[in-house]
Amino acid sequence: MPHIDLSNDLPGIVGLFAFRPETAGPLSALAETLLRADNSLTRGERESIAAYVSSLNECRFCDFSHSAFAAAQLDGGYDVVDSIKRDPQEAPVSPRLRALLAIAASVQRSGRAVTAADVEAARAAGATDVEIHDTVLIAAAFCMYNRYVDGLATFAPEAREAYDQMAEGIVTRGYEAAIASR
Amino acid sequence: MPHIDLSNDLPGIVGLFAFRPETAGPLSALAETLLRADNSLTRGERESIAAYVSSLNECRFCDFSHSAFAAAQLDGGYDVVDSIKRDPQEAPVSPRLRALLAIAASVQRSGRAVTAADVEAARAAGATDVEIHDTVLIAAAFCMYNRYVDGLATFAPEAREAYDQMAEGIVTRGYEAAIASR
Repeated sequence: MPHIDLSNDLPGIVGLFAFRPETAGPLSALAETLLRADNSLTRGERESIAAYVSSLNECRFCDFSHSAFAAAQLDGGYDVVDSIKRDPQEAPVSPRLRALLAIAASVQRSGRAVTAADVEAARAAGATDVEIHDTVLIAAAFCMYNRYVDGLATFAPEAREAYDQMAEGIVTRGYEAAIASR
Repeated sequence: MPHIDLSNDLPGIVGLFAFRPETAGPLSALAETLLRADNSLTRGERESIAAYVSSLNECRFCDFSHSAFAAAQLDGGYDVVDSIKRDPQEAPVSPRLRALLAIAASVQRSGRAVTAADVEAARAAGATDVEIHDTVLIAAAFCMYNRYVDGLATFAPEAREAYDQMAEGIVTRGYEAAIASR
């Protein structure tokens, strides 16, 4: 049961957005910009960074939902997403994404854990400064979303089907429209 | 030196906002809503939660800047802010703020570290559900801002005066206007 009375039974961050629309606005605009706006990283790649950080933070709602959003937008679907979460350095993804996932893992521990060597490795694998910036910010943002969702003890469905259904709305309409239409 | 070429020499998050205006929009709107919009928690109280979490994350730029913003808007100024950062449970603040700071410290470790007992203690000290929600989200948001600022190794001035000067802009004009006018 959530720590506070949300006056709704919506799962995870969706219930929090309905409870507090004032903060839902910037939070969903941030997700839309980071994960869906034009970018040289694909939507699938960016969602897989979000899913990976959420799994490191052991946040079931964010892990399962962003894994579903990544699987729906990534060649290889859940097989690739699951292998990233198991060990990104062994996953069948580009060397560039592997290096960016290593940066994301450092950010998950602490901003101060990111080393010049992490960044150099990403650059050597072809990552641009904007891609490195966006990876750091996606990882940092999920250290927020994960703490928000679990810090208020929101409800997270067990079945993957619930998240695959959410993925349809997000993939076709985006974060702001999908959330506003609930 | 920052990990990426920001093409500016602005400190901390200000340099990142200039580098990537697309994400600066939602990030500054979130800060404005959380820390300055109408709320039963004062601006000084909310800034002191931000400063406390930033000090726990050892993020100098965010710690010094939000300490300055808290000191400028809190009875007792830096004496109170410094005592909160030293030990919130001994600080000369209301029992309600003390209980909310304890929740913030749990969130800083992990969303899953927040206990029903933490929340009950805040409620017993008079905190509302919205205040508990906002405290969790402020603490979570600073786990993002801190990782963003340090994960890209941005520049943080040494002298408190630099932060007191920033405080003037934030206190009088707010996050969005102060940042847009740079």
